[in-house]
Amino acid sequence: MIVVMGKDSSPEQLAEVERRIESHPGLKPQVFHGVERIVVGVLGTITPDLKDEMELLPGVLEVVLISKPYKLASREFHPDSSSVTVGDAVIGGPDPVIMAGPCSVEDEDQMVSTAKAVKAAGATVLRGGAFKPRTSPYSFRGMGIEGLELLDMAKQETGLPIITEVMSPRDVDIVAQYADILQIGARNMQNYNLLDEVGETNKPVMVKRGLAASYEEWLLAAEYVMAGGNENVILCERGIRGFEQFTRFTLDVAAIPVIKRLSHLPIVADPSHSTGRWYLVTPVALAAIAAGAHGLLIEVHPNPDVAKCDGPQSLTFENFNRLMDQARAISEVREQPVEVP
Amino acid sequence: MIVVMGKDSSPEQLAEVERRIESHPGLKPQVFHGVERIVVGVLGTITPDLKDEMELLPGVLEVVLISKPYKLASREFHPDSSSVTVGDAVIGGPDPVIMAGPCSVEDEDQMVSTAKAVKAAGATVLRGGAFKPRTSPYSFRGMGIEGLELLDMAKQETGLPIITEVMSPRDVDIVAQYADILQIGARNMQNYNLLDEVGETNKPVMVKRGLAASYEEWLLAAEYVMAGGNENVILCERGIRGFEQFTRFTLDVAAIPVIKRLSHLPIVADPSHSTGRWYLVTPVALAAIAAGAHGLLIEVHPNPDVAKCDGPQSLTFENFNRLMDQARAISEVREQPVEVP
Amino acid sequence: MIVVMGKDSSPEQLAEVERRIESHPGLKPQVFHGVERIVVGVLGTITPDLKDEMELLPGVLEVVLISKPYKLASREFHPDSSSVTVGDAVIGGPDPVIMAGPCSVEDEDQMVSTAKAVKAAGATVLRGGAFKPRTSPYSFRGMGIEGLELLDMAKQETGLPIITEVMSPRDVDIVAQYADILQIGARNMQNYNLLDEVGETNKPVMVKRGLAASYEEWLLAAEYVMAGGNENVILCERGIRGFEQFTRFTLDVAAIPVIKRLSHLPIVADPSHSTGRWYLVTPVALAAIAAGAHGLLIEVHPNPDVAKCDGPQSLTFENFNRLMDQARAISEVREQPVEVP
Amino acid sequence: MIVVMGKDSSPEQLAEVERRIESHPGLKPQVFHGVERIVVGVLGTITPDLKDEMELLPGVLEVVLISKPYKLASREFHPDSSSVTVGDAVIGGPDPVIMAGPCSVEDEDQMVSTAKAVKAAGATVLRGGAFKPRTSPYSFRGMGIEGLELLDMAKQETGLPIITEVMSPRDVDIVAQYADILQIGARNMQNYNLLDEVGETNKPVMVKRGLAASYEEWLLAAEYVMAGGNENVILCERGIRGFEQFTRFTLDVAAIPVIKRLSHLPIVADPSHSTGRWYLVTPVALAAIAAGAHGLLIEVHPNPDVAKCDGPQSLTFENFNRLMDQARAISEVREQPVEVP
Repeated sequence: MIVVMGKDSSPEQLAEVERRIESHPGLKPQVFHGVERIVVGVLGTITPDLKDEMELLPGVLEVVLISKPYKLASREFHPDSSSVTVGDAVIGGPDPVIMAGPCSVEDEDQMVSTAKAVKAAGATVLRGGAFKPRTSPYSFRGMGIEGLELLDMAKQETGLPIITEVMSPRDVDIVAQYADILQIGARNMQNYNLLDEVGETNKPVMVKRGLAASYEEWLLAAEYVMAGGNENVILCERGIRGFEQFTRFTLDVAAIPVIKRLSHLPIVADPSHSTGRWYLVTPVALAAIAAGAHGLLIEVHPNPDVAKCDGPQSLTFENFNRLMDQARAISEVREQPVEVP
Repeated sequence: MIVVMGKDSSPEQLAEVERRIESHPGLKPQVFHGVERIVVGVLGTITPDLKDEMELLPGVLEVVLISKPYKLASREFHPDSSSVTVGDAVIGGPDPVIMAGPCSVEDEDQMVSTAKAVKAAGATVLRGGAFKPRTSPYSFRGMGIEGLELLDMAKQETGLPIITEVMSPRDVDIVAQYADILQIGARNMQNYNLLDEVGETNKPVMVKRGLAASYEEWLLAAEYVMAGGNENVILCERGIRGFEQFTRFTLDVAAIPVIKRLSHLPIVADPSHSTGRWYLVTPVALAAIAAGAHGLLIEVHPNPDVAKCDGPQSLTFENFNRLMDQARAISEVREQPVEVP
Repeated sequence: MIVVMGKDSSPEQLAEVERRIESHPGLKPQVFHGVERIVVGVLGTITPDLKDEMELLPGVLEVVLISKPYKLASREFHPDSSSVTVGDAVIGGPDPVIMAGPCSVEDEDQMVSTAKAVKAAGATVLRGGAFKPRTSPYSFRGMGIEGLELLDMAKQETGLPIITEVMSPRDVDIVAQYADILQIGARNMQNYNLLDEVGETNKPVMVKRGLAASYEEWLLAAEYVMAGGNENVILCERGIRGFEQFTRFTLDVAAIPVIKRLSHLPIVADPSHSTGRWYLVTPVALAAIAAGAHGLLIEVHPNPDVAKCDGPQSLTFENFNRLMDQARAISEVREQPVEVP
Repeated sequence: MIVVMGKDSSPEQLAEVERRIESHPGLKPQVFHGVERIVVGVLGTITPDLKDEMELLPGVLEVVLISKPYKLASREFHPDSSSVTVGDAVIGGPDPVIMAGPCSVEDEDQMVSTAKAVKAAGATVLRGGAFKPRTSPYSFRGMGIEGLELLDMAKQETGLPIITEVMSPRDVDIVAQYADILQIGARNMQNYNLLDEVGETNKPVMVKRGLAASYEEWLLAAEYVMAGGNENVILCERGIRGFEQFTRFTLDVAAIPVIKRLSHLPIVADPSHSTGRWYLVTPVALAAIAAGAHGLLIEVHPNPDVAKCDGPQSLTFENFNRLMDQARAISEVREQPVEVP
């Protein structure tokens, strides 16, 4: 940590800054007089609230954090890439893992037919929402436990492991009985009680990026889960809130190589939610694969125009087949792994 | 709702759009042939998922919602302004209500001294966090129930009603035993299980705007609480995520008159969290009052430089006194109420 | 255009709306009474300022534009894709066109060696800045006309056509003498005098997306150039301003298929400026190709660490060679063209 | 400047960083070994391109600028507040200066009647656009020189000095013949040739904040003008591009006290363009005054519903009168000046 003071700070102000640093066990100040600033380096392991304390001292202009606030999620402290294995899928391995299925679980026929179709096309994880976060209280909010049972039925039929969202700390136990991967939605990325709770399970957790989350906040959300003892974390870029309203969100494709550099955790992309329009899903999915994503989350529905949720962004079986062919072709020619120095 | 189709849509495509509309009980299409587009108006009460359904039909270019998706929170359906009364404070009345206190509850002395100081300066609600959402799992996360007890002690001493945050559906009951207003933090604005749960209590609820929430999403979060039967909702503008990092967030001051126009609910502002720097709190607080805010949420701490949380944005007692004097002066000269036609 | 009025608008207010519409030659209103709204459709060709006029009439809640405000740039009015040919490069054809070179022209040796290296690797257009927009007045602002002459020298040596930025209407003539493509920088996307001026030349123009430009504003900037009579326009996605500061800008990869759907103009991407970090350039470049971009703009420098401008985002010759190999492999397996229905 | 290196950087890498720093005349490195990082402070006056150079050296993780890149615009180098005087208006003095008038100059009657009305209400500067930046090439783009003559006529009648926009370096001379303040529009904030050109005049210049400009970029735009020798610069907050589309832009009210702290230049606000809706103009204008703005730019039109440009955000004479009464009342009770420590 670097404490920046004005050139005209008084000796007393500087002394107080030094005294405060030394009042924390294990910390030592090192002063350095520049042309326009006095800079005080802080030697030792910084506690997260120290920045706030120093910023308020008289004469201090700015406090700059030099180390990253996340450790368990950081590549610096864990240079080898991690992977998460569920069923036949290795998320974080050389091949992209495709997780596909409907936005919402609706009925047995829809789930089983979709599961079979996406498996036949090459998907190795089945997605489907039983508990749905909806912007309006009057929208369909999912089938709940009954939906979990239908997911399980589709799993029995196809062997595909299940990824499904959990929205509340109270539901973690029941969802974990059915799910192979627990999904934390974008709107819950900073629902810290929920992160704590899934951190105490032994199920892999996918943390979707919040609509307005910086890379650091996102990795700190992963850190919450890992600090609870659960190291099987997958990150998912699903688009951030921007000023353009033609697409629902703006997929930040550079997040994929950035996360690979900052963290050892696997990173996948969700082109369905980010674009919100089915005809944009394939080009954006291919972009994510080319940029090095470890997988994709794709909404597929037998009849998108009667889907109970997010129909406009769902692919038909036929469109999904075409996406899979192209994704496979690109993943075969991309470097394995895409190197991020 | 308006369904926009291309000029060159086929008669069959148009017929299918009409058939779909009519398949919903109570809905009727009305077609209108423009120069560059065919426009189909939908007569009747629209369900929230109809837009998704129509967007996917062949020939449809765009679907435009004309009515607002929120009803209970809407001024259109409830023209008279609402107010929420706790203790001596009427939030939504002619005078701005100042809710002040420390970011985190730390100890009895801090709470009681702060409560007395803010009361003496004119605050009529005491704020203080017992459950704290923190970006890093390693930051101080609040005293929990012990903190609620200290808040209660300060309430007994001063008579000030309490506003405090609740972060998890599981904690709603216990927090509601102590709090006079339940605060939903910005990061939980779309934590729908939590909104449902506070909607079932009889305590007033303050819904802070999410970091990336549109006005409509924010009002729909209020609608969640109200749909549960709890109509005592207060909105709080606390800054949105923007590209400028000098301030923590960007306070959207226009949100105050916009919300007064779109909704009958009272609206307050939080200049402490939005700016993140104590020397910006007073000017931004005064701006909010001048724009017509029904109140303010202000962080005050006896010694900001040793605060366990958010010290840099806390005011000393002396600075808070000065803010109160200026806020009072401005509220006396502003029109009562600031008219939003 | 759709004029939305409240259900309780008076007959006089509705009559005035109808009268105003009819006062414009060729326009006719069509009224339609919904459950919560009265909607007035406007038949005829809308002038761009009519929306403003209607919004102010008493009883009007909202005015919704149904048609697009751009025509010449629109795919709707020009269904076949356009392409721009310079030298051996066909921008808008099946193969992505790589435009590479240094951010700034610095000296003959740098320009000629870079031109030879990028040509050998497969680039077919040479980029290089002679007039440089710099955030600080104290940064190196380019060599000006001398830089144009060095570009020309490199063109003579290699046969590569030149793309270079023009910043001022006054410089259009001189830059057009040297350049094969005139580049309008992101900061000048709404410099309308400059757009007018390049619209009057017969040189192809590349319009970079403004830092905060919507798709519509960007296509309207292209429309300015085309309205001047110059139809050889190329669009370039170069990243938008977002809240994340780790990358310089946020490349909006979905813009590529969106623009292909809304417009017939070719669209390329600039991964160098958007990421600002050389190790992100290749993955983001490959993403753009996979998403269907017609080309790339890549900064290459013999010695990035002594470049006078934007060194951190420049590739060495070796890194550029590797990018080209991978881009070629992906473009060979992507569908030709990537279909955007 | 601070160069941050990894703990495991080699001695050679550190030596190269030191060598590079020393290769710049007047610069000296000072090394400091932390627990997780090696930090190298750079002593001396930093050139703006040095950051780029250092970022690329092997072993360097990050380069942090400690000093501000602007000097002439900085309060640090110029502690006393500046003011700009035109006619009876002192922008930067204790009283807010109201600059009012129509968006576009349309005809003599409109200009003269508006000038008289705004003068009677207390405005001391007349605004009006002769050269108009419009998003669409098909919108009304202003009367040009004829418009300047009409502005002059209104000035002769009322004695009010004129503020009007200049869009192109070529027009600076002619506009400067008529204008008392040259306005640089938001879309031209980084049109550096234009900034250079107005920097060479002796007319006061108002620099509007770009739609996506950080505080630093905005102050650097002012620095461009001042570096040309023209120190009479006024800054104008006019709203930034955000995700909410209900208002045209998001007025960043905190910018007012931030700029007062970072710079000595006067700062005014434009609530008309930022909100885009006349009924939001007054509350946002009052907010700006309460936050300490040195003035306001307000659009006023005799008949907003037939205005040729931006009618929806224009006030009638009557509404402007009411705004002036309230603004005066608030400016009388606000501290003079609002202190920004």
